[in-house]
Amino acid sequence: MDIEQINANVSVVLVETSHPGNIGAAARAMKNMGLSKLKLVRPEEFPHEKAIFRAASAADVVESAETYDRLEDAIGEAALVIGTSARGRRIPWPVVDPKQAAQEVLNVVAKPQPVAILFGRESKGLTNEELQQCHLHLHIPTSEVYSSLNLAMAVQVVAYELRLLSHEAVAPTADWDQPIATQSELDHLFTHLEQTLTDVGFHDPANPRQLLTRLRRLFLRARPDQMEVNILRGFLKAVNQSARNEGD
Amino acid sequence: MDIEQINANVSVVLVETSHPGNIGAAARAMKNMGLSKLKLVRPEEFPHEKAIFRAASAADVVESAETYDRLEDAIGEAALVIGTSARGRRIPWPVVDPKQAAQEVLNVVAKPQPVAILFGRESKGLTNEELQQCHLHLHIPTSEVYSSLNLAMAVQVVAYELRLLSHEAVAPTADWDQPIATQSELDHLFTHLEQTLTDVGFHDPANPRQLLTRLRRLFLRARPDQMEVNILRGFLKAVNQSARNEGD
Repeated sequence: MDIEQINANVSVVLVETSHPGNIGAAARAMKNMGLSKLKLVRPEEFPHEKAIFRAASAADVVESAETYDRLEDAIGEAALVIGTSARGRRIPWPVVDPKQAAQEVLNVVAKPQPVAILFGRESKGLTNEELQQCHLHLHIPTSEVYSSLNLAMAVQVVAYELRLLSHEAVAPTADWDQPIATQSELDHLFTHLEQTLTDVGFHDPANPRQLLTRLRRLFLRARPDQMEVNILRGFLKAVNQSARNEGD
Repeated sequence: MDIEQINANVSVVLVETSHPGNIGAAARAMKNMGLSKLKLVRPEEFPHEKAIFRAASAADVVESAETYDRLEDAIGEAALVIGTSARGRRIPWPVVDPKQAAQEVLNVVAKPQPVAILFGRESKGLTNEELQQCHLHLHIPTSEVYSSLNLAMAVQVVAYELRLLSHEAVAPTADWDQPIATQSELDHLFTHLEQTLTDVGFHDPANPRQLLTRLRRLFLRARPDQMEVNILRGFLKAVNQSARNEGD
């Protein structure tokens, strides 16, 4: 799915955020992953220059954020509401991890219908009443020793998982700048290497130990490209000439 | 794998961080995911109260951070060095996404051997020279519109993926028969290689082109073990002696 279709249908809803800097940092985390719909329910200080500052190049996300007095109004249109929650609640609720949450989001966005993802107060998260308005609770795996994620960090992790599930997050196959060496080019390299190792007295064909096998394994593992093979053979050739001069 | 075994072997290395608040936020992101080994290379302002403040309950991670003047000293013991990089580089390098990176980390931690994960400057990341010391480059998928992640956010995403993999049963890689070479062993190899390339007339230090960078990339990609490094250096030594005899 296109990240644009996800963005068009997914709102990040921050509930009673205390620190405007966190609003800005959350906006940046969203925009970095291709999201832009930010809703703020009763933010303590907003608008605020700290929000703009921490947003860096995502100031547009902060400036276009919608503020609400009531959570119900922020999530009224949503067909799926997911609430982040650090700890288990008295009444167990369906809980998903960020990857499962992203999949649930995609299933709804595909229809297409709107989704709201809720993040609570820095100090104490979402209230039980707020969490009970959610279809799903989202738990980000954390250390038992220190489980309280910064608000914007939680937004970052969830937005990252959404981006991964979009088509844009294809595995970063780096365009290599050279063709990979063929097996016969490698064979020539190994033959040349063996000859040179023998010439300089490092390798005794009569008593080979595992030397050549180990070098073969090393180079095969690296999957050399053609320029790398040419460089190695150029080096071996220079060694050969150096040895030949010696013989003269 | 146990997160404790990961933590015991994984260092987060922040290079020339400008803002101490980011050091604190990175420390918190680490501790939230169960990591604690933080190394700082030439931080601009450190120690600093802002680092402690932003760390919240991860002040211990900030306080136990080790500072270094030279990157080489921070990563010398590592058997795997991963450098985060936002953009493609002139010479393509093996690139992994955060999930693949976590898997690579686990394979090395399983041995167990140390791993360093590098994060660069807020303004411009890691230099090409720093990236060329890495076995792998790590790219976090981002929006083309705004791809510059906050430093601590990048640490959060990578630490999160490490934690996710810690929970899963990971198939151990085939038992390798030798320890992986450390970064300083590789540095000695590269220095020796450069000297030898020059001695045999294949490399002109005054006109280096990309020869050494390409050879560095080749060997880093293969992640040589210690015996392989010994074999290569033994070969170079034999070449040196051959060249020296020539001079006699």
